Amino acid sequence: MNLIVAGSVRLPPEKLDAFRHEMRAMVEATRAEAGCIAYSYAEDVLEPGLIRVFEIWRDEAALDDHLLSTHMSRWRAAWPDFGVTERRLSAYDVSGERII
Amino acid sequence: MNLIVAGSVRLPPEKLDAFRHEMRAMVEATRAEAGCIAYSYAEDVLEPGLIRVFEIWRDEAALDDHLLSTHMSRWRAAWPDFGVTERRLSAYDVSGERII
Repeated sequence: MNLIVAGSVRLPPEKLDAFRHEMRAMVEATRAEAGCIAYSYAEDVLEPGLIRVFEIWRDEAALDDHLLSTHMSRWRAAWPDFGVTERRLSAYDVSGERII
Repeated sequence: MNLIVAGSVRLPPEKLDAFRHEMRAMVEATRAEAGCIAYSYAEDVLEPGLIRVFEIWRDEAALDDHLLSTHMSRWRAAWPDFGVTERRLSAYDVSGERII
């Protein structure tokens, strides 16, 4: 069963440009993981500095591997330097998908 | 069963600021719908002009109502003026959720 992970983190909007290279490194390393179907960061169009996270994983094992990855450790370690806070993420079990 | 709707539309990045008031109107009208649990637009941090859509609906009936709403018609009618294209959205049946 696929899993969707969705939610947000927040940072001061003026730090976003400097943080972008960290986000790019994390996105590229994560998309290269075998069980990663989708992975993205996007800034809310109405709330500057609110970064919306969206991920799709092949299964629970793939998500577990991701959470234990070296790039995840580096990613989290970078947060204090850029004022990243308010991590709010949920995992959703997906039982069906269709294009609408 | 809740549904997640996720995907993207695209527009020329230089149109985003002018389009923001349309997005705000659509977000506000949609969040006021009875069956709407979450609804947001966010610009990909690595691909300017790629707008990522994320929605959670109480059930299929709530999503159906949304797709037939007056604000949906207005929203779609505004797209040509702002060069909005490449609508790609999927609906996912959600059978479980947990905070991670």
